Amino acid sequence: MKRIGLLNGPNLDRLGKRETEVYGTTTLEEINGKVLDRAKAYKVEVEAFQSNHEGELIDKIASWTDASYVGLIINPGGFTHTSVALRDAIAGSNISTIEVHISNIHQREDFRQKSVTAGACTGSIAGLGFQGYSLALRFLAGS
Amino acid sequence: MKRIGLLNGPNLDRLGKRETEVYGTTTLEEINGKVLDRAKAYKVEVEAFQSNHEGELIDKIASWTDASYVGLIINPGGFTHTSVALRDAIAGSNISTIEVHISNIHQREDFRQKSVTAGACTGSIAGLGFQGYSLALRFLAGS
Amino acid sequence: MKRIGLLNGPNLDRLGKRETEVYGTTTLEEINGKVLDRAKAYKVEVEAFQSNHEGELIDKIASWTDASYVGLIINPGGFTHTSVALRDAIAGSNISTIEVHISNIHQREDFRQKSVTAGACTGSIAGLGFQGYSLALRFLAGS
Amino acid sequence: MKRIGLLNGPNLDRLGKRETEVYGTTTLEEINGKVLDRAKAYKVEVEAFQSNHEGELIDKIASWTDASYVGLIINPGGFTHTSVALRDAIAGSNISTIEVHISNIHQREDFRQKSVTAGACTGSIAGLGFQGYSLALRFLAGS
Amino acid sequence: MKRIGLLNGPNLDRLGKRETEVYGTTTLEEINGKVLDRAKAYKVEVEAFQSNHEGELIDKIASWTDASYVGLIINPGGFTHTSVALRDAIAGSNISTIEVHISNIHQREDFRQKSVTAGACTGSIAGLGFQGYSLALRFLAGS
Amino acid sequence: MKRIGLLNGPNLDRLGKRETEVYGTTTLEEINGKVLDRAKAYKVEVEAFQSNHEGELIDKIASWTDASYVGLIINPGGFTHTSVALRDAIAGSNISTIEVHISNIHQREDFRQKSVTAGACTGSIAGLGFQGYSLALRFLAGS
Amino acid sequence: MKRIGLLNGPNLDRLGKRETEVYGTTTLEEINGKVLDRAKAYKVEVEAFQSNHEGELIDKIASWTDASYVGLIINPGGFTHTSVALRDAIAGSNISTIEVHISNIHQREDFRQKSVTAGACTGSIAGLGFQGYSLALRFLAGS
Amino acid sequence: MKRIGLLNGPNLDRLGKRETEVYGTTTLEEINGKVLDRAKAYKVEVEAFQSNHEGELIDKIASWTDASYVGLIINPGGFTHTSVALRDAIAGSNISTIEVHISNIHQREDFRQKSVTAGACTGSIAGLGFQGYSLALRFLAGS
Amino acid sequence: MKRIGLLNGPNLDRLGKRETEVYGTTTLEEINGKVLDRAKAYKVEVEAFQSNHEGELIDKIASWTDASYVGLIINPGGFTHTSVALRDAIAGSNISTIEVHISNIHQREDFRQKSVTAGACTGSIAGLGFQGYSLALRFLAGS
Amino acid sequence: MKRIGLLNGPNLDRLGKRETEVYGTTTLEEINGKVLDRAKAYKVEVEAFQSNHEGELIDKIASWTDASYVGLIINPGGFTHTSVALRDAIAGSNISTIEVHISNIHQREDFRQKSVTAGACTGSIAGLGFQGYSLALRFLAGS
Amino acid sequence: MKRIGLLNGPNLDRLGKRETEVYGTTTLEEINGKVLDRAKAYKVEVEAFQSNHEGELIDKIASWTDASYVGLIINPGGFTHTSVALRDAIAGSNISTIEVHISNIHQREDFRQKSVTAGACTGSIAGLGFQGYSLALRFLAGS
Amino acid sequence: MKRIGLLNGPNLDRLGKRETEVYGTTTLEEINGKVLDRAKAYKVEVEAFQSNHEGELIDKIASWTDASYVGLIINPGGFTHTSVALRDAIAGSNISTIEVHISNIHQREDFRQKSVTAGACTGSIAGLGFQGYSLALRFLAGS
Repeated sequence: MKRIGLLNGPNLDRLGKRETEVYGTTTLEEINGKVLDRAKAYKVEVEAFQSNHEGELIDKIASWTDASYVGLIINPGGFTHTSVALRDAIAGSNISTIEVHISNIHQREDFRQKSVTAGACTGSIAGLGFQGYSLALRFLAGS
Repeated sequence: MKRIGLLNGPNLDRLGKRETEVYGTTTLEEINGKVLDRAKAYKVEVEAFQSNHEGELIDKIASWTDASYVGLIINPGGFTHTSVALRDAIAGSNISTIEVHISNIHQREDFRQKSVTAGACTGSIAGLGFQGYSLALRFLAGS
Repeated sequence: MKRIGLLNGPNLDRLGKRETEVYGTTTLEEINGKVLDRAKAYKVEVEAFQSNHEGELIDKIASWTDASYVGLIINPGGFTHTSVALRDAIAGSNISTIEVHISNIHQREDFRQKSVTAGACTGSIAGLGFQGYSLALRFLAGS
Repeated sequence: MKRIGLLNGPNLDRLGKRETEVYGTTTLEEINGKVLDRAKAYKVEVEAFQSNHEGELIDKIASWTDASYVGLIINPGGFTHTSVALRDAIAGSNISTIEVHISNIHQREDFRQKSVTAGACTGSIAGLGFQGYSLALRFLAGS
Repeated sequence: MKRIGLLNGPNLDRLGKRETEVYGTTTLEEINGKVLDRAKAYKVEVEAFQSNHEGELIDKIASWTDASYVGLIINPGGFTHTSVALRDAIAGSNISTIEVHISNIHQREDFRQKSVTAGACTGSIAGLGFQGYSLALRFLAGS
Repeated sequence: MKRIGLLNGPNLDRLGKRETEVYGTTTLEEINGKVLDRAKAYKVEVEAFQSNHEGELIDKIASWTDASYVGLIINPGGFTHTSVALRDAIAGSNISTIEVHISNIHQREDFRQKSVTAGACTGSIAGLGFQGYSLALRFLAGS
Repeated sequence: MKRIGLLNGPNLDRLGKRETEVYGTTTLEEINGKVLDRAKAYKVEVEAFQSNHEGELIDKIASWTDASYVGLIINPGGFTHTSVALRDAIAGSNISTIEVHISNIHQREDFRQKSVTAGACTGSIAGLGFQGYSLALRFLAGS
Repeated sequence: MKRIGLLNGPNLDRLGKRETEVYGTTTLEEINGKVLDRAKAYKVEVEAFQSNHEGELIDKIASWTDASYVGLIINPGGFTHTSVALRDAIAGSNISTIEVHISNIHQREDFRQKSVTAGACTGSIAGLGFQGYSLALRFLAGS
Repeated sequence: MKRIGLLNGPNLDRLGKRETEVYGTTTLEEINGKVLDRAKAYKVEVEAFQSNHEGELIDKIASWTDASYVGLIINPGGFTHTSVALRDAIAGSNISTIEVHISNIHQREDFRQKSVTAGACTGSIAGLGFQGYSLALRFLAGS
Repeated sequence: MKRIGLLNGPNLDRLGKRETEVYGTTTLEEINGKVLDRAKAYKVEVEAFQSNHEGELIDKIASWTDASYVGLIINPGGFTHTSVALRDAIAGSNISTIEVHISNIHQREDFRQKSVTAGACTGSIAGLGFQGYSLALRFLAGS
Repeated sequence: MKRIGLLNGPNLDRLGKRETEVYGTTTLEEINGKVLDRAKAYKVEVEAFQSNHEGELIDKIASWTDASYVGLIINPGGFTHTSVALRDAIAGSNISTIEVHISNIHQREDFRQKSVTAGACTGSIAGLGFQGYSLALRFLAGS
Repeated sequence: MKRIGLLNGPNLDRLGKRETEVYGTTTLEEINGKVLDRAKAYKVEVEAFQSNHEGELIDKIASWTDASYVGLIINPGGFTHTSVALRDAIAGSNISTIEVHISNIHQREDFRQKSVTAGACTGSIAGLGFQGYSLALRFLAGS
């Protein structure tokens, strides 16, 4: 069975808890739950992991690479715009990777317009809300 | 029945005809065909249109707006990086719009890194090949 | 009798139809009507033309030049910030030209702060709403 | 009766005295005279003031605000491109303000292309010569 | 008894009078009053001065330097972002200087993000409202 | 017989009609005539086309590609500096392309110094007047 | 009793140990001690935490948010200039936050002039030495 | 007898009083004295004026222009790097003007490297200490 | 006996495991082994440490400083281009530090051309492959 | 008989000797030979000169100017992008000059996109291989 | 007797020979002659040298340094804006150096606005024509 | 026997003679002597050459290439930051090249931070003093 990693970066553990007027009350656990449900339908295995620590995200990508994961869905949060190290980890993993952003980063502050990590990914989905994760899974499960 | 427009910009009529070693031999007609097939499954109506003329794309968005289309899938091709007029057309239409790019623009030349039009869209999908169109349709059909 | 052209660029045909909460419900036809009324008072002849096609705007400037028009009122819409070709058309026409913007472009996005076309015009009026057209006519009619 | 201020910044007192081959021989007094004549026709009261001192221009805007002026015509001269303080004064006054430039600043040096003050104004008129003041008055008188 | 200057730049005389929905109704006189009250408690002498004139602010710093002032609290208003002359005046005074901003300049327009004058000061306080003045006084009184 | 396209972009139809003091009185028809004369000498077939419409230029390149043209001489006029879509059309055609500019773009405004389209061409000739077209033909005819 | 967090970022644990000729011999423990003393006077509860790990700082802000802290004093050290993730953590916490810098960052290297995190804070204090922490506490305790 | 103005801008009245370890103890009065002595030798008349007020410097240039001064020696101090208004005053005066800086601005902060005013002057002398004034006088007296 | 630290940053634990066609099959353990062998020859003591966690690298530098290490060889990986915190840690340690890069960063992407950390180091070696570590050791052992 | 100079800059003496897989095995001597052959046909006299020394190129232009050369074909090699001195030499010579580049500089590194020297030339030919020299000669011989 | 070097860079040997309508007909020999005449009056020894070769200028500065020259007047011509090597030569010489430009570089092209070499000089004189050399000599002779 | 070139650029002949308080009193001859001593130990042949002339450095690289040198140690001095021609010479030579800088260029002026030449080299060593040359030799001798 194909294995796919679902990685969420800094502050995404706060979804549904902070700024609920903007982001709604859906928690990361609920989002992960839905993606895992879908995974069953697509007959792939998904492991979800979240961390506020750049190093832990890099460690996880390395361990998933060693465990022969074939796909990676990543929302690098604030690291999107700054982390060359995370970019290198994705590039070095050779795992097919989709970068997901819940909001449309093209409508936010200037420093959020540029993604450092996207250049190492296969593709990206932005602005489609929580559904972005499911669409990324669908792509990875099917390819 | 929900109506959704599928708009392809300059040079996308050449898909499957030019640079086939890079882009493969699938033609735009075949891509459109697949999206229209999906549309039936999702019980939405999709009309496809391609033009190399910026003005015709803007005209089409206006006419679809008047015809109460609820969704727009757009691959603005080279206009992505230059057309404020197209951006204004999208913004003025109030149609929920997904920008689709076949390749990952973050891995290409500097002048392709920035999307002028994306700021007026709901979201974007890039680098997922022709499947990007289907995933965009799925999102618009469901929302 | 002096002849003056009134040229509106992309998306301005949508005035009064889109984003009415921002731009109001006055249509381009109504604006043109008021300018034409004024033209009678000033004893000049005004022809109005709108297009979403950059090429048609350039063609029109050329034909008005050949028809000895002495003045041009132009709202290039989104082409303001991108079209060197339109700038060249204005510069090459030798017609006294006023660039009009309905809103104050200095209060909008960064990419709207710069006008590519204004350098080829005699002058510009911005932020004075639909009245900008009338004031431009008054200037051209009198000079 | 509506009151409107007419404010000219640094070096504009030299009009008609310096570089007459470029700017002609019309003096600021004569320009002011014409605007005041028009004011009578429009049944508004106009007070004219010129200063080379940034602080005096700011003081004047404050005093006109306290005196319930409803409109301001300002040619900030060289302060256009540098004065955040003047911009703040305009923004804080809540008076409807039109920035006027005699020449087309888009045809001059790079450092004259950007207006610091225009973002705090209602709109701007440039390149229409001395008539720019009259057109601004017409707009303010009528609105 | 230690002497400390309290200097407010352009438009700060309008506090409590303009944009009261943003800045509240407290006037500069009331703010100065509170700081002077505190001064008594700290057993230092404070003189307050406001001007919209850059030159007067520079003159005042010079005269306070000659009068052996040991501290300076300055809110340069719009001059913060533009005045090299004011920066030189502070640097030349050798008076320990705290720059105070009522609002958080990091949350405002791009051109307000940079302080020209802060590099010549001992330190700065921003975003803490009117209390910024008192905290600056506390620091200067105690050092 | 080798077929070569001769494509002129916006405003080049005005050659010999506008700004004759700068560009002389030779018309585009006359230039085209000379190039066609040369073509006979070189035993190649040349078709000339001019348009102010970006889309028509792109359409034409596509149709010439389908018709197995082996060379393209293009003066993109104002589109030189802005059109990614035209660049993509050239790149996708695989036709050997020479970009020609009548004047030396290195001696003109800053925004004319950069060519967006030249990166997709084989080479470029600039500043050699109308002769640039003939030299380009000579190169394409011989290679 | 109000709870306030005191957060110090990378290398601040080295205060009083490294570069003592520049920063003096006061240790972070001593600084924290003084702030905690003050806290008693102000009748607020302060918890101090230092880490060289960006993730731990983010985790701590999240846990303090959950524990209903009302104020946060943060010296992000080197993360000030780079960490979008930390900025997001502050913004998402809705805790009133003061950014403190011991030295005046406006007198240091170019890359230290810009604070990424300050835009998410209520305000900032810089250049007032260790006293900056106490003044921040005073503000938060009183507001 | 030729008349030449000697104009010193903000903070130059503090020479010999501030930062004497850097600038020495020579006062502006003494410098002016030396230049006036030289003036006698060169048989020209020199009037010296200093102000911290940009407006007063502009006023003075205007009055010297009206009084037919033929030369101007100006050290604009901090206004050098910011004042478009002062530049305009020099340009409008048609007086032959030499900009003098006591120190070598190329060895100072980045923001002091650029002179806004120098473009309107005949020439400039920098880094030659107080002697720069005398050399400027020599040039103007002789030309 | 002199003690020297050998610090490798993010993703360098993957050497010999990822992208072996580019980086070869030598592992970090083998590289460390060779450096430790050399260390014996040079009669210095080397401790090797790798982490994907910025904070752990900073912690390690602090602990080595406390343990009186005299030299540091560091390959900061992706942190090279982003980490002010790591730069501060090196600067604060007063340990003589050599930055090593296996590849020539001048031949890679633009964002890899600039090193944030190198300014705090004694020197740097790049592009000499794994030998860079040995040469750095040789320098530190001998100085 | 018209005299025309053929000047090649640094490293062009290595043509046919270095990087032959890229540039082929034609030597500069052979290229010069072909151009001289053509010159006979055109009945002009051509002198060829190559140097790796910027000063020798400048000296040669000066001596050719004194010898009344009417045309100059120059490939400035690496000096194209850096040499203001060479540009001045061309500008000062008043000789009609064509800049030739063998490859299309628009397809190379960023720092090769800009030509410092081209602004002083009549025109330029790039990307047409060795034939660029002949075409330049044809233009100069005929004009 | 004090020895002072007079160094002229590329193309300055062409003075009086090229562009005489701009620079007049005075030759470099005549300028040097005047400076040498002045030198006698000031009782200093001046040696003049001109070269179009950057290396020769650097060699000459080195030899004059070894020969204990105390002053250097240099007009680096086009090297002004590009030569770090020349800057290093001046900085390494410890000779008091005045950079002279005949024209006012602030009124020329953008790339001439910045001097690379001036930062290594004592001061600079620009725009005062050939007299700039004499004034520089006067300064060096007297200091 | 392997042959390796040792090339020093402008002003490096002055080592030990200028600024001895910064660079010490070791001369280039002494440095070269040490490297040649090492060369014997490594059984390679080293030829040393220094010049202040860019052209001579390029000529030398060409002649060493023809003489089948296998390695090049180069300290381009001030040419590091400016010479595209030297970069091309290195790139065209196919000799394995190490760029050496005595000081750490990351701690110097902005314009010294970028190396134009390093992109054409195998690698670089900076900040390790004269030992940088020996370490470069060691690398080249062994590879």
